[in-house]
Amino acid sequence: DSSLRVFTLNSNPHLAEQIAAHIGTELGKCSVSTFSDGEVQINIEESIRGCDVYVVQSTSEPVNQHLMELLIMIDALKRASAKSINIVIPYYGYARQDRKARAREPITAKLVADLLQTAGASRVITLDLHAPQIQGFFNIPVDQLVGVPILSDYFQEMNLDDLVIVSPDHGGVTRARQMADRLKAPIAIIDKRRPRPNVSEVMNIVGNIEGKTAILIDDIIDTAGTITLAANALIENGAKEVYACCTHPVLSGPAIERIDQSKIKELIVTNTIPLKEEKQIEKISQLSVAPLISEAIIRVHELQSVSILFD
Amino acid sequence: DSSLRVFTLNSNPHLAEQIAAHIGTELGKCSVSTFSDGEVQINIEESIRGCDVYVVQSTSEPVNQHLMELLIMIDALKRASAKSINIVIPYYGYARQDRKARAREPITAKLVADLLQTAGASRVITLDLHAPQIQGFFNIPVDQLVGVPILSDYFQEMNLDDLVIVSPDHGGVTRARQMADRLKAPIAIIDKRRPRPNVSEVMNIVGNIEGKTAILIDDIIDTAGTITLAANALIENGAKEVYACCTHPVLSGPAIERIDQSKIKELIVTNTIPLKEEKQIEKISQLSVAPLISEAIIRVHELQSVSILFD
Ligand SMILES: Nc1ncnc2c1ncn2[C@@H]1O[C@H](COP(=O)(O)O)[C@@H](O)[C@H]1O
Ligand SMILES: Nc1ncnc2c1ncn2[C@@H]1O[C@H](COP(=O)(O)O)[C@@H](O)[C@H]1O
Repeated sequence: DSSLRVFTLNSNPHLAEQIAAHIGTELGKCSVSTFSDGEVQINIEESIRGCDVYVVQSTSEPVNQHLMELLIMIDALKRASAKSINIVIPYYGYARQDRKARAREPITAKLVADLLQTAGASRVITLDLHAPQIQGFFNIPVDQLVGVPILSDYFQEMNLDDLVIVSPDHGGVTRARQMADRLKAPIAIIDKRRPRPNVSEVMNIVGNIEGKTAILIDDIIDTAGTITLAANALIENGAKEVYACCTHPVLSGPAIERIDQSKIKELIVTNTIPLKEEKQIEKISQLSVAPLISEAIIRVHELQSVSILFD
Repeated sequence: DSSLRVFTLNSNPHLAEQIAAHIGTELGKCSVSTFSDGEVQINIEESIRGCDVYVVQSTSEPVNQHLMELLIMIDALKRASAKSINIVIPYYGYARQDRKARAREPITAKLVADLLQTAGASRVITLDLHAPQIQGFFNIPVDQLVGVPILSDYFQEMNLDDLVIVSPDHGGVTRARQMADRLKAPIAIIDKRRPRPNVSEVMNIVGNIEGKTAILIDDIIDTAGTITLAANALIENGAKEVYACCTHPVLSGPAIERIDQSKIKELIVTNTIPLKEEKQIEKISQLSVAPLISEAIIRVHELQSVSILFD
């Protein structure tokens, strides 16, 4: 379809190429660089008048740079008469700032939604928002794809015996349940609590993990504190071995060292955020979301329902 | 006045302190840092309910970081029930992307105006916008202060003889005229033109500079190519000595080296952008805009006209 165009910015060029290949097209010509003073410079190098444009960009680190690239690209596409500006944000940054946890905090996840709409976005395609409520921060259609099927399929092929799917906290139980359904396994929950203020947390495990192969699942792994403590607690409490997985490998600060030194046997992530070379350690396997996103783009473009891709 | 609060973010903390001192108040308590993954974290540490808040932040390098700090701060202030959110942007970044010079370019200066308003800004106080049209990109009041009086006063006190004020290009003639009026001097213009494509530019000087002390004036000095070539051309064409001045010392890339090696005797700039230590060379003098901005804040807060400060 000649009116469909896929562009990439600087966060995920490799994923964007995979997506274009799946769809059977080539990436649109565009240069995204910076001026000498660090200001973003974008040149769209082909006409996109009347086209349905899809722009692939995660708001991953450096988050402010990647977000501004996306906003400026949307502005340029709008002024160049794109018919629709569909932004594919595999990883939606600032998602954890989604409520006022304390007085006088910003709600940056909502601010970012407003900024994207102000710039001129027509639609958002994303994966595993940290909270499903973030969809409601937008007044444009949001298609939220999920990583669970991709991660589950990987474990299915490993043919592991006697599994238990473990949520590292209370917030992730629904996600663990979805994976457990696919892998026909029971669930367990790490039930952290602090008995008194200034007393360290107790890692209580709800559910039977004794002698089982545990799979920890989370949406984001950032500094990897939660997931590595959970893995070690599972082993101490009698689990046979521990795998971990997540959709978004933020992996900042001490994450890689912690994972390397933890009891986690293998960590499976997707490529919503590419792994810099120093993060590509043997323990980590990365699965591509390109087929999933490509399918969503084709369905959106052909005005079909995307909901079949949500589970 | 207890309802006036001044906050600083990370671009110009020193200027903000000077402003607060001039106004006779203290900076509001607020921490502006980043999470491990680089996302901006802002905590406003005192109530600002019902207050007129002034936030000092230039969108200078790192521009995307500074802009996001400002947007997130505005969001937090809005949700904390500030009565008005007045943003003091001494240097407005992305100002040179103020029109479509070529097909399919963004107009980032307008985008940024929209973003600031979407976040919730009530008013803008700024200095020397690259183009006065940028005021029209906003639908909220914009007070544009000017650097010419501060720069002119400095030269006035030097008591230089036989001056000529020189604009380094056609776009800056009005600014040169304003300084010339204050210093009771004539003007000259560097009239660059390219005789044929791919032939290097000719630096033609319109006006009499022979034996005179020339003062080059510009709004922004970025890589310093224009200003240093202009200075050398003036000396070659018989000027006695050359000073240069500007409001916004962006000074990126090769700027410092070029200035150091040029025929410029002294460069006078303001502190709308602070100079990092490696940029503080002997040839450069920096003047504070704190008195000017403080006066503007007091006038805005007391509902007086600010226009008296524009010249
Ligand atoms: N980039 C970030 N890195 C670490 N913590 C964050 C980040 N953004 C927000 N938070 C904090 O994470 C908490 C929300 O996380 P959660 O409880 O998992 O939804 C809030 O207290 C936020 O202040
Ligand atoms: N940050 C920047 N650094 C250098 N050039 C820029 C920057 N932003 C915009 N420009 C270019 O500067 C030109 C406008 O400058 P001017 O003619 O002085 O208004 C346009 O061609 C822009 O593409």
